[in-house]
Amino acid sequence: MLPALVLLLLLLCLPGMAGAATREYWVAAAPARWNAVPNGWDAIHGTAVDPAATVFPTVTYRRYTRGWRRPARLDREAGAGRIPGPLLRARVGDRILIHFKNLDTVARRRHSMHFHGVEYEHGSDGAFIPGFSGPGAVVPVGGTFTYELRAGRGSTGVWPYHDHSTAMDASIAGGMYGVLSILGRRERAPDREFVVAFAPMGTLQTVNGRAFVGNTPVFSARVGEVVQWDVIAMGSEHHTFHVHGHRWRGGDGVPLDTRTIGPAESFRVRWREDAPGAWLYHCHVENHMAQGMIGLYRVRR
Amino acid sequence: MLPALVLLLLLLCLPGMAGAATREYWVAAAPARWNAVPNGWDAIHGTAVDPAATVFPTVTYRRYTRGWRRPARLDREAGAGRIPGPLLRARVGDRILIHFKNLDTVARRRHSMHFHGVEYEHGSDGAFIPGFSGPGAVVPVGGTFTYELRAGRGSTGVWPYHDHSTAMDASIAGGMYGVLSILGRRERAPDREFVVAFAPMGTLQTVNGRAFVGNTPVFSARVGEVVQWDVIAMGSEHHTFHVHGHRWRGGDGVPLDTRTIGPAESFRVRWREDAPGAWLYHCHVENHMAQGMIGLYRVRR
Amino acid sequence: MLPALVLLLLLLCLPGMAGAATREYWVAAAPARWNAVPNGWDAIHGTAVDPAATVFPTVTYRRYTRGWRRPARLDREAGAGRIPGPLLRARVGDRILIHFKNLDTVARRRHSMHFHGVEYEHGSDGAFIPGFSGPGAVVPVGGTFTYELRAGRGSTGVWPYHDHSTAMDASIAGGMYGVLSILGRRERAPDREFVVAFAPMGTLQTVNGRAFVGNTPVFSARVGEVVQWDVIAMGSEHHTFHVHGHRWRGGDGVPLDTRTIGPAESFRVRWREDAPGAWLYHCHVENHMAQGMIGLYRVRR
Repeated sequence: MLPALVLLLLLLCLPGMAGAATREYWVAAAPARWNAVPNGWDAIHGTAVDPAATVFPTVTYRRYTRGWRRPARLDREAGAGRIPGPLLRARVGDRILIHFKNLDTVARRRHSMHFHGVEYEHGSDGAFIPGFSGPGAVVPVGGTFTYELRAGRGSTGVWPYHDHSTAMDASIAGGMYGVLSILGRRERAPDREFVVAFAPMGTLQTVNGRAFVGNTPVFSARVGEVVQWDVIAMGSEHHTFHVHGHRWRGGDGVPLDTRTIGPAESFRVRWREDAPGAWLYHCHVENHMAQGMIGLYRVRR
Repeated sequence: MLPALVLLLLLLCLPGMAGAATREYWVAAAPARWNAVPNGWDAIHGTAVDPAATVFPTVTYRRYTRGWRRPARLDREAGAGRIPGPLLRARVGDRILIHFKNLDTVARRRHSMHFHGVEYEHGSDGAFIPGFSGPGAVVPVGGTFTYELRAGRGSTGVWPYHDHSTAMDASIAGGMYGVLSILGRRERAPDREFVVAFAPMGTLQTVNGRAFVGNTPVFSARVGEVVQWDVIAMGSEHHTFHVHGHRWRGGDGVPLDTRTIGPAESFRVRWREDAPGAWLYHCHVENHMAQGMIGLYRVRR
Repeated sequence: MLPALVLLLLLLCLPGMAGAATREYWVAAAPARWNAVPNGWDAIHGTAVDPAATVFPTVTYRRYTRGWRRPARLDREAGAGRIPGPLLRARVGDRILIHFKNLDTVARRRHSMHFHGVEYEHGSDGAFIPGFSGPGAVVPVGGTFTYELRAGRGSTGVWPYHDHSTAMDASIAGGMYGVLSILGRRERAPDREFVVAFAPMGTLQTVNGRAFVGNTPVFSARVGEVVQWDVIAMGSEHHTFHVHGHRWRGGDGVPLDTRTIGPAESFRVRWREDAPGAWLYHCHVENHMAQGMIGLYRVRR
């Protein structure tokens, strides 16, 4: 009887134990020439957008292969990889090592990575505090630093990461932020995961660094799939995330279809898809919609 | 024994089944001459308000009798009917048909209705998307469209509706929005229901299109009544809804007396009235209070 | 058997009954010369701040000994006492008497106290409403008023209080606000309680009336202690409260490390401290951080 019970307990625990792992990511701050409105067009208002105001040099987080040998492929389905940076995935219980290299040979600024939601010792905080912070807060051009993080029991969810070095203000304005997505120990992954990062860029209001329908990510799903939206905001403004034709429940069980999000806040929204069509997702702040913070979500049968 | 059980089950289910219905509303986009400060006075600061800046032509949603024969009476107790438009009520399980007619013979713009919180097929979305949207997104002057909605299990609560056509920005600035209020299948209706729509109009900050105490709605209740506040916001700013002398619990059970609301967000607040007096309700953003977003709530014994 | 049961019930109830009390506070609106940046330095950006723009006369709430005989000592651990005013503590079930005196002999304005979260009769509302409010809303220079409050079952939490008299706008801009902290009837007090009041002062964004690391409060705790953050916001802007290296759960159980707070909203956050180091706490609105809304939290082993 007792051995059977022990075996049963072991079998119950194994899937969780098997999930715990050390995850390693190689990331660099890398120069990029960015075009926030590639098609030069605000389709909703039917007006042209001047490319002179929407193409500019910047520095963003980019995922690399082991040892920063070469850039890794982008996560196009999630709409991530350049702005926002790589979607970093883990599970509660995981140890996460982020190997960071500063390749900013253009602006030649010091950079760092500061992670929300995860546990770490003070040395991995990545935030510049005169007199208190260490090398992880001010990685010089050409330098490297490994941030050691743990996904604890209170880390389930989606979280921003961003530069918190001396040049933080300029870095964030240029798109130096990304998303951590952490599943519970035994939580099932969604079928589709979409990253929505609301942030201003100059006079534009962008989703993932792009403005206006046709430039912002077109997310896709099929009826029956479980979709997850990873929503963050960066900058100095509050937003309201809205998806047409869909509703979800907040953590308190109250139905929602629009939710406020302020700078560095984050939340995830899930549903099983049941509404075919070409839907809008957007920030519902009217000025932000008009300045480009809007995109398409296509659901096929 | 069995027939008795069946009968009992039937009796238990009947009230809910009886609640399910098809609700039809006849609504038009109708021109109006609007006065945001009818008494020309900011009573709290004791200053006159120039009528030249507060009276203007606009277009709002208005409820009509069947077949748009004549305007229906306004819902004065709830403070709704012109700005915001009619308070549209339903219950979970209901089918809702909104017969919309564009009577905007003044600005002669195309208009639509986009509903939050409810379920609908793509054709009833009411939002203009070049290449994807249909006739319900761009109803021409003189034209009609019927939006077919369902109040699903995730539709309980209060929700905004608003123009989402090509002229959406100007329409919302002029007051083209309203509130849907959906009760649970067997939920008891409140004794009093008050609509509070926070939105800017020009340089004013309004409640239901009016600014300053004495112009904004005066809501009334008696001790012992269950009162419900239907709060929405439209425009480009975030607000905080506050009622003096009262508290309520959020969906998570935490006591509140002030709550953030951003554009197109919505929530309802309920309590059994126990505090007689003449109370203020207002947006607690200081500038918004000073620009008129404040009113009176009178509770009698 | 029965007498034993009655005795047991009595013993169980006594701690709660013993907690109910009448708490009296003596508070005055008192002139002060305030320096928002005493060290004249923005340490994060390494720039000097002009004292001409950061030192000014103002009026704040200050706690006094019984009968307003002399100012009481400040609550330095909580970072309260001048801006924000005294941290007023109570428990659910308590009656709270706030004896207020207007000592504003400088600006010579009428003042009041309006309390969030607690129960009171209309006469203790403290808000000026022409035609409806009484003497508690407009206490003249040299005058006094006693606000009679009750901490009800829906009063657990932290709440702002502030001037709501005719000069409310100027008073709040000058720092005339404070925090009420109300524990549940039998709730254990935290080991450390920190007040964080986000509000603008001129062009600065302040925590407790101070701007920039080294001027804003330095909060301190030790590993193993239960710490509580009492967060409020005043003014016209929304903020996001963030503490580095820590997470907590919202009322709905969802993990957070950043949370939106708008004018007059308030919440408390608790955790058992387990992360030694010198951490930043700040508003995550980027412009607000840059304008001073940031401070240090030191955790010792």
